[in-house]
Amino acid sequence: MTTPDRANDSAASADSASAPAAKPRKDPHELPDVSGLTVGVLGGTGPQGRGLAYRLAKAGQAVVIGSRSAERAGTAAAELAELPGGAGVRGADNATTAAESDIVIVAVPWEGHGDLLTALREQLAGKIVVDCVNPLGFDKKGAYALKPAEGSAAEQAAALLPDSRVTAAFHHLSAVLLQDPEIEKIDTDVLVLGEEREATDIVQALAGRIDGMRGVFAGRLRNAHQVESLVANLISVNRRYKAHAGLRITDV
Amino acid sequence: MTTPDRANDSAASADSASAPAAKPRKDPHELPDVSGLTVGVLGGTGPQGRGLAYRLAKAGQAVVIGSRSAERAGTAAAELAELPGGAGVRGADNATTAAESDIVIVAVPWEGHGDLLTALREQLAGKIVVDCVNPLGFDKKGAYALKPAEGSAAEQAAALLPDSRVTAAFHHLSAVLLQDPEIEKIDTDVLVLGEEREATDIVQALAGRIDGMRGVFAGRLRNAHQVESLVANLISVNRRYKAHAGLRITDV
Repeated sequence: MTTPDRANDSAASADSASAPAAKPRKDPHELPDVSGLTVGVLGGTGPQGRGLAYRLAKAGQAVVIGSRSAERAGTAAAELAELPGGAGVRGADNATTAAESDIVIVAVPWEGHGDLLTALREQLAGKIVVDCVNPLGFDKKGAYALKPAEGSAAEQAAALLPDSRVTAAFHHLSAVLLQDPEIEKIDTDVLVLGEEREATDIVQALAGRIDGMRGVFAGRLRNAHQVESLVANLISVNRRYKAHAGLRITDV
Repeated sequence: MTTPDRANDSAASADSASAPAAKPRKDPHELPDVSGLTVGVLGGTGPQGRGLAYRLAKAGQAVVIGSRSAERAGTAAAELAELPGGAGVRGADNATTAAESDIVIVAVPWEGHGDLLTALREQLAGKIVVDCVNPLGFDKKGAYALKPAEGSAAEQAAALLPDSRVTAAFHHLSAVLLQDPEIEKIDTDVLVLGEEREATDIVQALAGRIDGMRGVFAGRLRNAHQVESLVANLISVNRRYKAHAGLRITDV
């Protein structure tokens, strides 16, 4: 068995060797101000997308909900606007949502993931893309992880969007809790993955805007599959304990 | 994207349909008394194995450390016995450890996992086996998940040990913290996976014996791969935050 500590020790040495001594390491808790950025949510009319849009709007973020149909997006936005703190969400078709946002959260079903991103490559160029898709299958024994050819939904996004800054985050949230206006705090950390520090810092900061949440850096996209498919385990937790389970990382 | 809640709702209905109304569901927090059981730790001379053996002994459990060499196992046990609360650990070769224990934790390196279990099939028959092996690779970018042919280390164990009660747990522990006698509490939940409720309940109860830990049921063995490989992400967390990260499940 490989232990995190031993691995960490050797990995940390490798890290120190590659970083010049003159350049002090950045404080990982120091994150940028993202309050002025517009957040788009592709698939924003589904439960998770709606929930995230609501929480981000409640936190003061400008939010655009995207859908194939601009009309359905508008209806969903109008419904959220009636909830306390839900003003500031507007709706648009997916292409407009992508084009008009600084950060674009991908919250579509796995089945439509590849086609949608292929179609939006141009609108998503230069944007921070946050993939939160969990490729899962279901049978009578419950949920199980699907195995995307690219390794994970996030790596598929990175392959299809070479001009975007692809990250992965927001996988383990309860859509029920996100959408419930009676719930003030969402008690969970958000694991943020990506290749580029500036982009993951921005996504961590965005997660931290939502009351109760914290964005924690958790590695490169090649380690996204297990984060995405851990949702299958949380579903088992939810069944056994009748809960809406979230995750906290200790010692951070 | 599939949300845990929707999936949970439908899965929960399926569950209720299959369970007769006359049989009330067991309280998932009600766990058996395991204080009288002897715990063996195969690979007990490695950092994780030693750490687990120490913590379990400290909790009052009878513990046998297993190693290929009975002498090395004896030396490691003698070293642990000198730590506060470390008495009650003894050493033996792996086969004796398996034969004399009620619960056997498999804490060997992934490379030797299959061969060891094949050799111990007879001694492990009828026992509760707890696989805590994380099959990982390392390169200059850090850690990444290996893909065992059986799906996961735990599923390999289940395939090689058809006469044992195979579970998976204790994947995300810091060997440094486990072995540090100055640390009183280990601040983490332990995800426990398996096919058989009685076995996973026992392993959850065992995890709960260690100060600070809690055993949480987290699904079937087919969902073990992501739990095992999440260690790659925790290694990234540890590097970024200079931490010994653990996991907590919220709302449970």
